[in-house]
Amino acid sequence: MRRVLISGVAGFIGTNLARQLVKKKYRVVGLDNLRKGSLANLAELIGSNQFSFHHVDLSDFESFLDTMKRLTSLGLFDEVWHLAANSDIMAGTTDPGIDLRDTFMTTFNTIRIMKEFQIAVILFASSSAVYGEHSGAMHEDIGPLFPISNYGAMKLASEAVISAAVDSFLQKAYIFRFPNVVGTPATHGVIHDLVRKLKANPKRLDVLGDGNQQKAYLHVRDLIDAMLFIREHSEDKLNYFNIGAPDAGVTVKFIAENVIKKMSPDAQIVYLGGERGWVGDIPKFSYELSKINNLGWKPKWSSAESVVKAISEVAQEISRQH
Amino acid sequence: MRRVLISGVAGFIGTNLARQLVKKKYRVVGLDNLRKGSLANLAELIGSNQFSFHHVDLSDFESFLDTMKRLTSLGLFDEVWHLAANSDIMAGTTDPGIDLRDTFMTTFNTIRIMKEFQIAVILFASSSAVYGEHSGAMHEDIGPLFPISNYGAMKLASEAVISAAVDSFLQKAYIFRFPNVVGTPATHGVIHDLVRKLKANPKRLDVLGDGNQQKAYLHVRDLIDAMLFIREHSEDKLNYFNIGAPDAGVTVKFIAENVIKKMSPDAQIVYLGGERGWVGDIPKFSYELSKINNLGWKPKWSSAESVVKAISEVAQEISRQH
Repeated sequence: MRRVLISGVAGFIGTNLARQLVKKKYRVVGLDNLRKGSLANLAELIGSNQFSFHHVDLSDFESFLDTMKRLTSLGLFDEVWHLAANSDIMAGTTDPGIDLRDTFMTTFNTIRIMKEFQIAVILFASSSAVYGEHSGAMHEDIGPLFPISNYGAMKLASEAVISAAVDSFLQKAYIFRFPNVVGTPATHGVIHDLVRKLKANPKRLDVLGDGNQQKAYLHVRDLIDAMLFIREHSEDKLNYFNIGAPDAGVTVKFIAENVIKKMSPDAQIVYLGGERGWVGDIPKFSYELSKINNLGWKPKWSSAESVVKAISEVAQEISRQH
Repeated sequence: MRRVLISGVAGFIGTNLARQLVKKKYRVVGLDNLRKGSLANLAELIGSNQFSFHHVDLSDFESFLDTMKRLTSLGLFDEVWHLAANSDIMAGTTDPGIDLRDTFMTTFNTIRIMKEFQIAVILFASSSAVYGEHSGAMHEDIGPLFPISNYGAMKLASEAVISAAVDSFLQKAYIFRFPNVVGTPATHGVIHDLVRKLKANPKRLDVLGDGNQQKAYLHVRDLIDAMLFIREHSEDKLNYFNIGAPDAGVTVKFIAENVIKKMSPDAQIVYLGGERGWVGDIPKFSYELSKINNLGWKPKWSSAESVVKAISEVAQEISRQH
């Protein structure tokens, strides 16, 4: 029975991953600083004897070390799924210290801890934001890598630290470059924002930008499925993959229209204008997915299907909370 | 009269750069933590009214901020030449905290400071180590970027932070990817090591590896010349260039033989074996230089000429010290 550590377990991706790994009979030890994540997300796992949760901030090396001493006395770990990170791109734009602490230092400390406790396999949630702006399709080997947000910069910096560790002590590393992921439990992102806004004012929906911004989206269930598939089928020492839906994506307009269709069909959509929604947000971005497709994986849902599915889920979740 | 800040001013490159900028009538404010660098290197500048030195550790944000408050009260800065970094690749292999503190955090804090004091132009000493291992020639736009040393990882992380700042508040950034640079004042590197060893034992010279390791080398005077040329002629918002000599380089054997020829012709050379000299050291590495050549710059000296010249200079410097 494989024993794995998940950092950022109480967040959006972590919650979904933990649930899936427990289903697959792994023993899962979850860590989270609970700054963005919530224990409520883990309610159905807390009782399981395959799962345990520990509250710790990975950016604080001494606390992390103490926690790991206790945890490894109960058994060794086979691998670390390192998902802990700041997930709020805009927050990192205002204060770059947030991405430094929550994205980069958590990775740097995770690598130090893995060396200390001889854990040889890491699986890391990276991001398409490492690429910065490119005019063509972004494949995994494209250069140069000049991220345009602190978020992307700290993800690239994390990849770099992992890469150096592969040459030093790690046996295997998996770098997953995430697309825009949708689903629940949602904490941020365009669907979450629009659903909340419309809930607050069912007559009018204000939308950043001109609505023509187009992106591909992946449902979180497809994302988890893709990571597990790569973990099983890719055999390099350093495995790095774009994950996403191989289509041109959908516009913000499409999302806004589906949100009102689902929640409040008579609402009026108002576009606030501007080409970019916010600093660090890349308009019309297209992701090359032949590497993962050649490995044999395809998502169940297209961008449009993922978005429509996620709107239902987020709308349901938000109405449950109110 | 341009007023510039140089970090790492008391180190190998910083000393040479400061001297050149003072010659060009700049007003130069130099910072250094004096951990590796030495004030002795700056002896001829200390008296100049175009130059001032301030002892500060840039990885300590509060001290850096205090120093900058004093310095900017005397006048604004036009640009920052950020050279401060750990220059000892091997030290970073044993303790990754060194590269984190001296290479990455100094860059992160420099960017914060530049935002705070509205300094809009940075010139950054990056490294060919950002590329990691590639089978072909390394041009500036190659990917993927998976450094194999913590040194390279923290240089790439620094580039990423600068790149995000270009999208946020910087007006111009110059990223210089340094080759192996030789000359004086030397603090490390193969020439420095071999000259010191032979000085200690003039009969026998022990050499790491098998002697066939081949690299290109650039003389520090050519390096400074290249940076100033790029600063003057490249007009992008983000300018990034490999700097080096466009030849296949020389072997460690060539260097060892020229060291004994210069210092102790009858000494015996003993190769200690192994393909790599140390972890993080990339064997046979070839650098694509067409971008800088197309801009109109070429070095004065080939790798072989630079090495022979530097051996003389280092030998002279080391005999002066003893």
